[in-house]
Amino acid sequence: MTSFSFDLLAREGRARAGLLHTPHGDVPTPMFMPVGTQATVKTLSPDELHQLDAHIVLGNTYHLYLRPGADLVAELGGLHGFMRWERPILTDSGGFQVFSLADNRSIAEEGVTFRSHIDGSSHLFTPESVVAVEEQLGADIIMPLDECTPYPCPRDYAEEAMERTHRWAGRARAAQHRTDQALFGIVQGSFYPDLRRRSAETLAGMDFPGYAIGGLSVGEPKDLMHEMLEHSIAPLPEERPRHLLGVGSPEDLLEGIERGVDMFDCVMPTRMARNGTLLVRSGRVNIRNAQYERDAGPVQEDCECYACRNFSRAYLRHLFRSREILGLRLATIHNLHFLLDLMGQARQHILAGSFARFKEQFLAGYHTVPEKVRLAEAAQRRQARQSAQSNP
Amino acid sequence: MTSFSFDLLAREGRARAGLLHTPHGDVPTPMFMPVGTQATVKTLSPDELHQLDAHIVLGNTYHLYLRPGADLVAELGGLHGFMRWERPILTDSGGFQVFSLADNRSIAEEGVTFRSHIDGSSHLFTPESVVAVEEQLGADIIMPLDECTPYPCPRDYAEEAMERTHRWAGRARAAQHRTDQALFGIVQGSFYPDLRRRSAETLAGMDFPGYAIGGLSVGEPKDLMHEMLEHSIAPLPEERPRHLLGVGSPEDLLEGIERGVDMFDCVMPTRMARNGTLLVRSGRVNIRNAQYERDAGPVQEDCECYACRNFSRAYLRHLFRSREILGLRLATIHNLHFLLDLMGQARQHILAGSFARFKEQFLAGYHTVPEKVRLAEAAQRRQARQSAQSNP
Repeated sequence: MTSFSFDLLAREGRARAGLLHTPHGDVPTPMFMPVGTQATVKTLSPDELHQLDAHIVLGNTYHLYLRPGADLVAELGGLHGFMRWERPILTDSGGFQVFSLADNRSIAEEGVTFRSHIDGSSHLFTPESVVAVEEQLGADIIMPLDECTPYPCPRDYAEEAMERTHRWAGRARAAQHRTDQALFGIVQGSFYPDLRRRSAETLAGMDFPGYAIGGLSVGEPKDLMHEMLEHSIAPLPEERPRHLLGVGSPEDLLEGIERGVDMFDCVMPTRMARNGTLLVRSGRVNIRNAQYERDAGPVQEDCECYACRNFSRAYLRHLFRSREILGLRLATIHNLHFLLDLMGQARQHILAGSFARFKEQFLAGYHTVPEKVRLAEAAQRRQARQSAQSNP
Repeated sequence: MTSFSFDLLAREGRARAGLLHTPHGDVPTPMFMPVGTQATVKTLSPDELHQLDAHIVLGNTYHLYLRPGADLVAELGGLHGFMRWERPILTDSGGFQVFSLADNRSIAEEGVTFRSHIDGSSHLFTPESVVAVEEQLGADIIMPLDECTPYPCPRDYAEEAMERTHRWAGRARAAQHRTDQALFGIVQGSFYPDLRRRSAETLAGMDFPGYAIGGLSVGEPKDLMHEMLEHSIAPLPEERPRHLLGVGSPEDLLEGIERGVDMFDCVMPTRMARNGTLLVRSGRVNIRNAQYERDAGPVQEDCECYACRNFSRAYLRHLFRSREILGLRLATIHNLHFLLDLMGQARQHILAGSFARFKEQFLAGYHTVPEKVRLAEAAQRRQARQSAQSNP
């Protein structure tokens, strides 16, 4: 793991600014990584990701294992060569996807057996096999197989899943052959403060090069997420990076940073974009709305992204109404630019010691989605996912 | 029309190399123009069209009239400002689309009444109203409303439609208010040599700044198309550009150039691309085929397009199998590059007097789709279009 390290450059309260060193280059933190589930950040080219100054992207182990297959990716130069992305890559464990399969998976100490959402075929993921897959994919940062619990979750099961996640983390590390990939430990423990603390302490004791916080943002209230985040982070060593898995709304990023998170990933900004929902400083807007029909202004005044520098809201609305792919592309570019720029600003403010004020000012102007609406949306997404996956 | 002119630079047999001057810049001919039906060349950004060195694109009058509406486009800077394309644009007449509506339109001397394929609403296109719409859209080259006949077509109806097309061309010209748009005359006459000649002679006598040849490539055998093309072109003045409407396969472009065509447009290369069918020097390949599963080579060796310079056939196949939008984009870029490059080469060869040999060599290596397959595909497309449009 000599090729991976983390420099902590500045602190403001618990917020941190740092620099991650990986075999494929450095990544300033705090940072948000666009999700490239199937070896492509949906709708974008690698050139556009460079233009957005994305420093790292995430690939999905579960999806790439099923299609096109990790051996094929390895043969074609690993994920970096296959998708033509020369900067750092992180692969997740597949745990979240597999545990989202609900009725189509069964857990044992050895690992988890699941049915493919593509063709219904049966597969076994073990901590060892997942590391083998991730070594073939060749990302710079890799996640071990973990057991992601739902919300709410009985305490017995939460504890059992957490303990298994710890044992799996140990087995994953023992299975590593490559020395150029940083394997993170994943904190679980559901929504029980003592479990969260015990999980972080246990993993910290195992000395991973970085830590991820899993099992959050699964439909719980925001306050509860923040509380669990604090319990998950407190026991972790200061000198190692922390990645909050699957979190990506602007307000969650700032709340996470304030609590000491360095890294984030989420499909939210790109998925929202393809639905016509755009992030602006005042909140979310849906570009399909009739009010933008003849609006000659850009999505966000003074935004520097390709979409805003060139096109009107009226044109974007037309593209969405006409189901034109360029609309999906421009919206994706804008949303990613918004989050990457927000992270860059947060970093500058931490370095300058003005993050707390920056966060307060941003959130004062940013209208968040009401909790009730947010939770209903999340429930709907889970249901849609499960019904799609139970009929492969 | 002082802002529009055509310089004939070289001839080889009937093939011509020229330079079209328009208010938005020059276009070397022969040329192929990508189709941007709904104010966007499907899947591509204007930046990418620049990188492909596309000199001109086509916008569709029928589609833009229905959505977002010509007045809205005018308000947002015309088509050039709306879609952010500063180079020349051509708008077609909408005639082809309206006459494809089959049962959902009725023709009278005044114009054609049709039902929208979007919401079933009723509309009237007259030669005057189409010009008014095209003046709002603001393209550099505009087409008058014409009556496009099917194949086969009874002689009576072919003659009647042709005569009406001539009268409509005169009415369209009389309705022009802007002086910065070149209105072309459209040759019709179905598949009757004497009608084709009479149509071209009549329009030539009306002295248009350019001529389009319509009503071909509607399901007829290739030999017949070539014969009709010759009859349509012979009476046209040498010093004016000729546009063959709706033709875009590599072999058809070369056959058209040989017969004196300067301009082409077609949805074929971009539509085929979205279906995974790619143009290479040996013919067409479908990138979904299993043989490309582990193929590390580019779509076409030594191709200079963004797709071929960066990505393997295996990656493209993966994108198509995974229904990822980047696959549609890369395939579109490749196919357009292929045709634009073919046109550029044809032009150089005409200037050098070596076009005949170039054409022969290209066609010797290029495996065209068998006539039977091609006609079956065309019939299928027509049927699909009509059934889609009869249920708006």
